[in-house]
Amino acid sequence: MTNARRSGPDLTEAIMRATLELGQELGYAKLSIEAIASRAGVGKHTVYRRWPSKGALLLDSLLSLSESALDYPDTGDVVADLGRQIHEAVDLLAGAPFGPLFRALVGEAQQDPGVAAALNERFIAPQEDKTVARLRAARDQGRLSPDFDLDLAMAILSGPLYFRLLVTQEPLTHAYVDRVLAALFAGMGPRP
Amino acid sequence: MTNARRSGPDLTEAIMRATLELGQELGYAKLSIEAIASRAGVGKHTVYRRWPSKGALLLDSLLSLSESALDYPDTGDVVADLGRQIHEAVDLLAGAPFGPLFRALVGEAQQDPGVAAALNERFIAPQEDKTVARLRAARDQGRLSPDFDLDLAMAILSGPLYFRLLVTQEPLTHAYVDRVLAALFAGMGPRP
Repeated sequence: MTNARRSGPDLTEAIMRATLELGQELGYAKLSIEAIASRAGVGKHTVYRRWPSKGALLLDSLLSLSESALDYPDTGDVVADLGRQIHEAVDLLAGAPFGPLFRALVGEAQQDPGVAAALNERFIAPQEDKTVARLRAARDQGRLSPDFDLDLAMAILSGPLYFRLLVTQEPLTHAYVDRVLAALFAGMGPRP
Repeated sequence: MTNARRSGPDLTEAIMRATLELGQELGYAKLSIEAIASRAGVGKHTVYRRWPSKGALLLDSLLSLSESALDYPDTGDVVADLGRQIHEAVDLLAGAPFGPLFRALVGEAQQDPGVAAALNERFIAPQEDKTVARLRAARDQGRLSPDFDLDLAMAILSGPLYFRLLVTQEPLTHAYVDRVLAALFAGMGPRP
């Protein structure tokens, strides 16, 4: 199939697939729009017409992997449901190609406010909305402390995982997130 | 004073001061060993003899700002003591010049395993040791849940702050960390 015949969605998908393939092969630092365009069989202007930067293209490519993967089940047992969702999140965040490329993107966000804003608007905020909705339902059912501040939920639940992913860079396992979740539910304070 | 007469500690201090000054002026991306050497009034080989890379030099320069700033008081009230220490940590992490340069260093750690290892060995691990020691004392005094897993303490206490610092990039305030600390002590689960 020649470029002239490929439709918009096909092209978009081919470019994002090339981004993930090359990202995994080369790492984020060596990834270039030229190489992506060449792998996808398009001109680099075709890429730039859709994405203003390598960071924006990578973000969209990563989002294409995470769509709906991070939804919450609602079985009535909030700890089990959070556990299941966090296991899926961890499989995504810690695995290839998502993990190393996502970490590189967060690294880029430390220097590029545009990447930081896009990451938050398109990945973090939708995830936070889902988390708060699931926890609000749990609170309404008496399965969460009535005093728990839902505005803190995303930072408290995700913070320990991102800390391990970005800072200590130790393995993120299901067993680890289960321990974190149990500790967060029990609380650090002594029982009254 | 000429270079020939400056002693080792003086030179080291001058180079680290130049790193922080220039880092604040230019940002991490534009910071170079050449510019640092020039600002410190030394040759670049003098810098490279002490530090293998820009990341290593920046880490040492940042550590010179944080020394002893992150010690824990022990007044007997563990929540108050953690609060005071976390306020100081937040003032350091969120302020200039430490904050933006530290964020850049964590960004660098996403691509450079040497920077990641140094950051953990020299900044995170000593901090974790202090945190665990303070919490163990609190647990021994019955002021912490006897079940709280001290191995998780650093990730649970620091994770929400780093999440805000690195990911959402919203302001880190004393009021925010107080809310997080209260939520962590109370726990997410319903009261028995």
